[in-house]
Amino acid sequence: MNANLSEYITKYKAKIENEFDHYLRNLNMHSRLKESMLYSLEAGGKRLRPILMIASYEAYGQQVEKVLSSAIALEMIHTYSLIHDDLPAMDNDDLRRGKPTNHKMFDEATAILAGDALLTYSFEIIANDPLLTAEEKVNLIKMLASSSGPSGMVGGQFLDMEAENRPISLEEMERIHALKTGELVRTAILSGAMLGKATKEQLEHLTTFAYYLGLIFQVQDDILDVTGDEEKLGKPVGSDEDNQKSTYPKLLGIDGAIKQKETYAEKAKEALQKAGAASSALMDLTDYFSNRDH
Amino acid sequence: MNANLSEYITKYKAKIENEFDHYLRNLNMHSRLKESMLYSLEAGGKRLRPILMIASYEAYGQQVEKVLSSAIALEMIHTYSLIHDDLPAMDNDDLRRGKPTNHKMFDEATAILAGDALLTYSFEIIANDPLLTAEEKVNLIKMLASSSGPSGMVGGQFLDMEAENRPISLEEMERIHALKTGELVRTAILSGAMLGKATKEQLEHLTTFAYYLGLIFQVQDDILDVTGDEEKLGKPVGSDEDNQKSTYPKLLGIDGAIKQKETYAEKAKEALQKAGAASSALMDLTDYFSNRDH
Repeated sequence: MNANLSEYITKYKAKIENEFDHYLRNLNMHSRLKESMLYSLEAGGKRLRPILMIASYEAYGQQVEKVLSSAIALEMIHTYSLIHDDLPAMDNDDLRRGKPTNHKMFDEATAILAGDALLTYSFEIIANDPLLTAEEKVNLIKMLASSSGPSGMVGGQFLDMEAENRPISLEEMERIHALKTGELVRTAILSGAMLGKATKEQLEHLTTFAYYLGLIFQVQDDILDVTGDEEKLGKPVGSDEDNQKSTYPKLLGIDGAIKQKETYAEKAKEALQKAGAASSALMDLTDYFSNRDH
Repeated sequence: MNANLSEYITKYKAKIENEFDHYLRNLNMHSRLKESMLYSLEAGGKRLRPILMIASYEAYGQQVEKVLSSAIALEMIHTYSLIHDDLPAMDNDDLRRGKPTNHKMFDEATAILAGDALLTYSFEIIANDPLLTAEEKVNLIKMLASSSGPSGMVGGQFLDMEAENRPISLEEMERIHALKTGELVRTAILSGAMLGKATKEQLEHLTTFAYYLGLIFQVQDDILDVTGDEEKLGKPVGSDEDNQKSTYPKLLGIDGAIKQKETYAEKAKEALQKAGAASSALMDLTDYFSNRDH
């Protein structure tokens, strides 16, 4: 990772993480439920989605404060989805990023409600932001709700559950991934640019960019599951093999998968050029995501 | 119930129930998850919140179409909360309104996701309504999110879980009820009136009205748990006694509780008069809720 990008990520990661407490502090609510919401918000994470949203905003817009509450709301939606996905009835995970999952740290009822609370509160945060016009708020809420709802992220998690314990095709897997992760990543990029007042044509090229970025993400996930370092990943490798999951390396071989990823990265960067965002942090972030080791 | 009110409720209940399918039909999503959402939406219910919202709108506004999508969104939020409250980790209920609860009919993972989907989609419905201005949408979303989130309904469910299996005071019980039910009822009334362009002063009187209506609801619930007909209620009576729950009848006696309810009804109607809504359906609805037998 180049020094500038590293600084960029560190700066905005800290900015985002400082805001969680600010947004929850003044909520008049039970302290334990608040603690549970904060626990998962503050449990680490790459902050990929809010950083993408900010970078996409900065490619076109000015003062970063304008995009901040939306970036926080987006991370809250992502966090709620992790809490619910980890539940015993879903993926039944005890650990996330090396820490007990929310229902392990608290209990199942609290985890369900903390997730519900984060989702609901994220829309309230946007609706209350004094820096946004009513039209901007409505557009943001439309994009966030649509990409995280039944035709987006929630739908993807349902497909994922439904496909468990049976071999699935690469096509099916891509569809699951596009809904579970891709939709929210796309919204991060498009809503940031929308707030920055990108043109309609620029937004179209960014849609292409987001599409390839999503694919890069998935290929690299698959590659890391074969070649990754368990310590850096914070999870065991080889689980895809155990699961009989269809993956890029299985279908194309490791070298083929790496080559595929490089093709996607070229296409992503080409789209960024066309979107007039070639000198933005989005360019470096593409390499960063393509070469990440965790 | 007088004939006009009965007609009124029947008409709007049908109108609301006809809309669920319309709103879900065009969603591009997995059919089983959609089925699960529709199952709970169509499992009956008094449709109290949307009918209150419509009646409150009609006290001030014209064409009822303007409030319809918000009323549907409100009922979706209420329905999601029932699905999640019924889960094994929460109230662990197998039956609701005489039918299997969502997680019994489908499974736990599906029920969690159907709830998440309904909550998320409700905000999207409002954001997409072509009959509302951006300002109206933002106000609606603010009110709905705030009353159903961590400082509202979700917070109330958390308090309720937390208070389980220990005796609680009437004050605590009222707080739980105010959050779990009262907040959304208040939003139904205030947001309906807001869309109908009620004045600030009228909204203040309606806030008082909503407060007493919430109390009426709770007292009548407590009374029915002592004197109600199990068949009409669709649930066993006497459960409050078994639970060592603090209730109005226990604290005031049955006669005292009935008297208290009548006092609340007078105050509710007085507030309605002041809000200029004395000739609206809200007046009859107050009596209806006060004397309901289920």
